[in-house]
Amino acid sequence: MEILEKRIQQDGLVKKGNVLKVDNFLNHQMDIQLFNEMGKEFKRLFADKPINKILTIESSGIGIACVVAQYFDVPVVFAKKTQSINLDGEVYSSKIESFTHKRVYDVIVSRKYLGPEDHILIIDDFLANGCAVNGLIEIIEHAGATIEGIGIAIEKGQQIGGKLLREKGYQVESLAIIDAMDDETGEITFRH
Amino acid sequence: MEILEKRIQQDGLVKKGNVLKVDNFLNHQMDIQLFNEMGKEFKRLFADKPINKILTIESSGIGIACVVAQYFDVPVVFAKKTQSINLDGEVYSSKIESFTHKRVYDVIVSRKYLGPEDHILIIDDFLANGCAVNGLIEIIEHAGATIEGIGIAIEKGQQIGGKLLREKGYQVESLAIIDAMDDETGEITFRH
Repeated sequence: MEILEKRIQQDGLVKKGNVLKVDNFLNHQMDIQLFNEMGKEFKRLFADKPINKILTIESSGIGIACVVAQYFDVPVVFAKKTQSINLDGEVYSSKIESFTHKRVYDVIVSRKYLGPEDHILIIDDFLANGCAVNGLIEIIEHAGATIEGIGIAIEKGQQIGGKLLREKGYQVESLAIIDAMDDETGEITFRH
Repeated sequence: MEILEKRIQQDGLVKKGNVLKVDNFLNHQMDIQLFNEMGKEFKRLFADKPINKILTIESSGIGIACVVAQYFDVPVVFAKKTQSINLDGEVYSSKIESFTHKRVYDVIVSRKYLGPEDHILIIDDFLANGCAVNGLIEIIEHAGATIEGIGIAIEKGQQIGGKLLREKGYQVESLAIIDAMDDETGEITFRH
């Protein structure tokens, strides 16, 4: 998606350790006009799928998912990290390892909001090793719901997550796939 | 706001200890059409204010803030709980006590995304004792930005937060204010 790639080139910062910081427009400050463009593109890419719900994970997936949901006219459910006393009743859960925060999270979704009748589009901001998406897939499978697709803003193409998900047969649509980053020159190479 | 009050009556659950669960449509599963109606109402209520940015706090404020932001045509910044290694540089910070999670959070906003030129609308899902909003106000004041208003989905009118904020002169607009809840009958009384 050209406008997202241009925005990453313009405002993304490449840091040591294969880190790309896009908190200027994606996951701290959020450009809602850009999220709308992403929503239109996801709708085009998943137009033929009978999606009735979007599932994302807190926190940085929520904003994108809510704006994208308008193009599918569906509700959003976000998976919560760690148990909350305000979530009663039964939950589906999974464990997700965050390399950013160097810890393992328990991730939960209330059984009330996911079931066999649901056709799910997973939305998240980043796909790298695939830990977060695989945790969501585990939860959706527990619920007996159908995974219609996976929509990602930025995929780190050098990491294995996207490749493995596609090999399993999922429709993974990443609006920008990064094949190489150089933290000395700041150069970012996209896959096309 | 009548459609929000009706939705709370229909789908909200009153629990012991003055707890209102609205995770069916507000803060776990999210009704994006309802969020759009809330956005229109906030725009009407804050129409005369020169708002250039919305500030909210993770996680349950983010979805509402992003949909609402479309009616103001502004970006959203969300305050993050606890330090992340992916947020470099200087941050504004504040401490917020969560009664739901029974702990104190450090909440941070990058100095890059808040400054003296900013005119801020604070958006959050709940206002009760006001801890979260007061933490955001402290951050905005550190940044030298202007607080143009505070937009809340549901205010618990029996608790002190809204009253104190209004006494300080802030324009606080809560789309539903609850004056009483009965966990035996499930009855909810709104302020009008």
